[in-house]
Amino acid sequence: MRIAIPLYPRFTALDAVGPYTVLAFAPGCTVTFVAPERGPVTDDQGTLTLLATASYAELPDPDVVLVPGGLGTFDALGDEALLEWIRQADTHSRWTTSVCSGSLLLGAAGLLQGAKATTHWALMGNLGAYGAEPVTERVVTNGKIVTAAGVSAGIDMALTLLAQAVDEETAQAVQLAIEYDPQPPFNAGSPKTAPEGLIERAINLLV
Amino acid sequence: MRIAIPLYPRFTALDAVGPYTVLAFAPGCTVTFVAPERGPVTDDQGTLTLLATASYAELPDPDVVLVPGGLGTFDALGDEALLEWIRQADTHSRWTTSVCSGSLLLGAAGLLQGAKATTHWALMGNLGAYGAEPVTERVVTNGKIVTAAGVSAGIDMALTLLAQAVDEETAQAVQLAIEYDPQPPFNAGSPKTAPEGLIERAINLLV
Repeated sequence: MRIAIPLYPRFTALDAVGPYTVLAFAPGCTVTFVAPERGPVTDDQGTLTLLATASYAELPDPDVVLVPGGLGTFDALGDEALLEWIRQADTHSRWTTSVCSGSLLLGAAGLLQGAKATTHWALMGNLGAYGAEPVTERVVTNGKIVTAAGVSAGIDMALTLLAQAVDEETAQAVQLAIEYDPQPPFNAGSPKTAPEGLIERAINLLV
Repeated sequence: MRIAIPLYPRFTALDAVGPYTVLAFAPGCTVTFVAPERGPVTDDQGTLTLLATASYAELPDPDVVLVPGGLGTFDALGDEALLEWIRQADTHSRWTTSVCSGSLLLGAAGLLQGAKATTHWALMGNLGAYGAEPVTERVVTNGKIVTAAGVSAGIDMALTLLAQAVDEETAQAVQLAIEYDPQPPFNAGSPKTAPEGLIERAINLLV
């Protein structure tokens, strides 16, 4: 199974590398970072640079498209080459997926009309503009469109995908291999459970 | 706070990028990937390349050292330049930390004598050779030495560190910003809960 993760300026590193690691550890899966041209792309903190190893033209027909989010998503909404690659890749893909604000790019590519979808909690209000029905869940499956909530949710989505694409045992073996037995030190990862006053502080980290 | 993550050939991507993302989102923290020289370093799946943006010589005295694990750790145990950088950086650091098999590198650098430490579940038996006392916990703090369990445990460790280094509210705000409210689709992330027969399958993914 060939998975393509498009990188664009100011993506969020964990959005891409969480699901990358899950999928790349699975037997028979190959994950490729793509961009307009091969070369370095820097994240939204300005301190992590990943190499894209294929151009859009070199990988037009992956089995899985996985679009990360990031502070650069809003600029990327106007990147017609990226949107066109997503649109074309979707015509071939078995799954077209996103993490965090990546779903807004699926929306801008016209893929979320009438679809249930999710995104980062702070951006749920933005999905409607693309004809999507916002759903506050960690991973939302709508036919071949699979969207994940903010940043770290890509790990859960990738395990879910792997179970469907290969089998549950393979997904579980990868989960055990990466020792994904999460024990967050705080119960602050969702606006539903976060201590009062934290939402504004978190939003300040995202602008 | 200046955090340095040394990269070596065949590191595991999520070991480095999980804690990177947590720490890089925190105000006042700067995370730098270091290597013998600036330039690309490729992960243990051969499909992800990160750029090191500082040489060892350019960042000898970070506040936090964070050593990732990976399938390349065993080769790196003989990399005297890496071990010497870790040893020297530790003489300045406020915390010296590791994820997954990265703790074996702390051990090889001589930093785990008499220390409680952890590592990937499949490698717990390797810690004793370095004079460490193996502890089966997600994050183990022994004075300034903080070690995390396999791969994904680096996210939990980074949040724990951030709470100590800055304050709990900052750690919680980052947790909310990255929506770290994990919902693994299976209860297979630890050898304690994994379905029977899965351990061998997981180990096969790690060699």
